[in-house]
Amino acid sequence: MHRSYSLRNSRAPTASQLMNPPPPVSSARNSRSFTPFRHSMRIHQAVNFSPDLAKRLAVLVKMEKNVMASMVQVTRGRRDAARQLSYWGEDCDDDISDVTDKLGVLFYEVAELENYLIDRHDQYRVTLKSIRNIEASVQPSREKKQKLLDHIYMLKHKDPESPKLVTMEQELVREEAACLVAEAQLSNTTREKFKQAMTYNLDALHEHAEKLGLITAYGRHLLNLIDDAPVTPGEARPAYDGYETSRQIIMDAEHALSTWIPAHPSVNFAKPQEEDVQSDARSWNDYEAQGEPVPVQQMTQMNDSQSDTSEMAENDPNMHPHVREERIARMDGVENNAVNDTTSLQPKEQQPAVQVA
Amino acid sequence: MHRSYSLRNSRAPTASQLMNPPPPVSSARNSRSFTPFRHSMRIHQAVNFSPDLAKRLAVLVKMEKNVMASMVQVTRGRRDAARQLSYWGEDCDDDISDVTDKLGVLFYEVAELENYLIDRHDQYRVTLKSIRNIEASVQPSREKKQKLLDHIYMLKHKDPESPKLVTMEQELVREEAACLVAEAQLSNTTREKFKQAMTYNLDALHEHAEKLGLITAYGRHLLNLIDDAPVTPGEARPAYDGYETSRQIIMDAEHALSTWIPAHPSVNFAKPQEEDVQSDARSWNDYEAQGEPVPVQQMTQMNDSQSDTSEMAENDPNMHPHVREERIARMDGVENNAVNDTTSLQPKEQQPAVQVA
Repeated sequence: MHRSYSLRNSRAPTASQLMNPPPPVSSARNSRSFTPFRHSMRIHQAVNFSPDLAKRLAVLVKMEKNVMASMVQVTRGRRDAARQLSYWGEDCDDDISDVTDKLGVLFYEVAELENYLIDRHDQYRVTLKSIRNIEASVQPSREKKQKLLDHIYMLKHKDPESPKLVTMEQELVREEAACLVAEAQLSNTTREKFKQAMTYNLDALHEHAEKLGLITAYGRHLLNLIDDAPVTPGEARPAYDGYETSRQIIMDAEHALSTWIPAHPSVNFAKPQEEDVQSDARSWNDYEAQGEPVPVQQMTQMNDSQSDTSEMAENDPNMHPHVREERIARMDGVENNAVNDTTSLQPKEQQPAVQVA
Repeated sequence: MHRSYSLRNSRAPTASQLMNPPPPVSSARNSRSFTPFRHSMRIHQAVNFSPDLAKRLAVLVKMEKNVMASMVQVTRGRRDAARQLSYWGEDCDDDISDVTDKLGVLFYEVAELENYLIDRHDQYRVTLKSIRNIEASVQPSREKKQKLLDHIYMLKHKDPESPKLVTMEQELVREEAACLVAEAQLSNTTREKFKQAMTYNLDALHEHAEKLGLITAYGRHLLNLIDDAPVTPGEARPAYDGYETSRQIIMDAEHALSTWIPAHPSVNFAKPQEEDVQSDARSWNDYEAQGEPVPVQQMTQMNDSQSDTSEMAENDPNMHPHVREERIARMDGVENNAVNDTTSLQPKEQQPAVQVA
C-alpha cells in the first residue's frame, strides 16, 4: 500500500481499489451538477469577513453547513422515493404491493435517520463555532503585543533615552501576561471543544451506521416474501398470505431501532476534570476572569488530575492498544516534566504571571 | 405503539421519539432550501411522457436520480470539509495538527464510501428501469385487446349477423393469447428485476453502514490521542509523540475497510431457477419468443424448482423465522393448488395457449 496517511499529501489508489473494478459510474455524476450558488457564497463570506486566525475554521463551519444543506435535499428525495415506491406497488400483485409498501416504510425510516443525523451534525458544527469564536477573540491580543514590540524596537533605535520607553516596557509585560492567558485559554478551549465536537460527529455517524445496518437486514427479510418463481402464461400465482409476516418484520425493525443503544459508551471527554472542578475549587479560568492569581494548591491539584487521566488510560477497555501505549508513555513524560518544572523550569516560565501579582 | 405499518396510511410518532426529546433542529433546515428546478423538471417529464402503466415507476426512477444528484453534492461537501479540517489543524499545536489530518483522512474516506454508494444506487435505478420498460411494452397489448372487445360489443348490437364478427372474434382469441403471454412476462420480469434491484440497493446500504461503523470506531481511537488536560497560563504542554500511533490507526482502518466482506452473503435471488434453466432446458420465455408451445416436461420441471425453493426456505439459516413459516405455508399451498390444477383448473385456464398451439 503506497497510500499516504495524510490529506496534506496526494493519495494513491488502494490495493483493493485496484483489485475490484468499481461499478459503472453513475449517470448522476455525468450531468453538469454544479455547486449551488448559495454554497459558494457562504464560503466567500467566511473567507472575506473573518479574522485571520479564525479564517480556516470559519470556512470549515460554512462548509459543514453546505454539507447539511445537501443532506436535507437527500433526505427529502429519499422520503419522496419511499412514498413513490409504495405508490407504484399499490397497482401490482398482492405480494409486490405488500412488500413495496413495507420496504417504503423502511426507506422512509432511512430518511428519518438521515434527518436525525443532520440535527446531530449541527451540534458538531455549533461546537466548532465556539472554537472559531475564541480564535477570533485571541487575535486582537496577539496583534496588540506585536504592535507594542515593533513600537519599542523602533523607539530604541531612534531615541534610546526616551522616558516613554519605560512605560511601554511595563505595558509590554502586562500585554505579555494577557497574551499568555489568552493562549492558554485558546489551547484549552480548542482541545476541549474539538474533542466534544468530534465526539458529537462520530457518535452521530456511528448511530446512523448501526441503525442503517439494522434496517437493511430487515429489508432483506422482506424481500424473501416475494415469490419470484416464473409462471407460464395463463398459470395463476399462488395467493399471497405474507401480510402478517411482513407486518411482524416491520414491527421487529421498529423495535430494534427504538431499543438500540451504543455497543460501547461514547468517549468520555473531560469527565475527570469536570469532577475535580466541581469537587473543591473554581477552575483557573474563573480566577483569571476576576484578575486573581491562581492558588498554588490548585495547580498541584491539576497535576493530580493529569495522573488520574493516566490511570484512566491504563484501565479503559475501549481504548485502542496503540493509543493506550502512547498515552502511558506521554503521561510518564508529563511526570518527568513536572519534576523538572518544580526544580528549574517553572519559576522562569511563569515569570509574567508572577509579575502581574 | 400506534404507528401504522404502511406508508399508505398516516404515521404517528414512535414511543422512543416521544421519550427522547430530539436535538435542536438544525439551522440548515430553517433556511429556505427549495427543491432544485432540475429535480422537479425530471419528475414532470416522467409524469407527462410515460405510458399510463409505467408512469408511477417512471416517476420513481426519476426520483432516485434526484436522490443521487443530491448525494453527489453531499459527497463533494464532505470532501471539501475533510480537506479544510486538515488545513485548519495545520496551524494548531502538534497533537491537534496530527489528529485533524488523520481525521480528515477518515472523513475523506466517508465521502469515498458515499461516492461508491451512489454508483451502486445507480445499479438499483437502472434495474428498476427494465421493469419500467416492460410495463411500457405491455400497455399497447392491453389497449389493443380492450379496443377489439369494445368493437365486437358495438357490432353485436348494431349488426349481429355481420360476417366481420367471426373474423374479429378470431382476432380476439389471438389477442387474448398474446395478452396472457405479456402479462406473464410482466409478472415474471417484475418479480425477478424487483428482487434484483432491491438486493443491489440493500446490499449497497448494508456495506455502507458497516464500513461507516468501522470508520467511526477508528475515529474515536484517534480522538483519544488529544491531550485535553487544561494547562495554566505559561505552562508548556508535554511534547506530542503520537505520530506513529495515529499512522497505525489509519493503517488499521484502511486494512479493515479493504478486507471487509459481508457477514452473511446477500439474498440469493432466483439462483435455483437459473441453475435449472442452465442445466437442461431453455426457459419458457425462449419458447414464447419463437412461438413454440412450452413442453409439458419443462412445466413439471418448474414445479420441481418450486419445491426446491421450499426446501431452501427450510434450510436457509439467514432467513427470518416469520419468512420461513410463511414460505413453507405458501409452498404447501402451491402443492395443493398444483394437485387441483391437474384435476380441474389447468385445462380451463390454459385454454388460449392450447388454441395458439
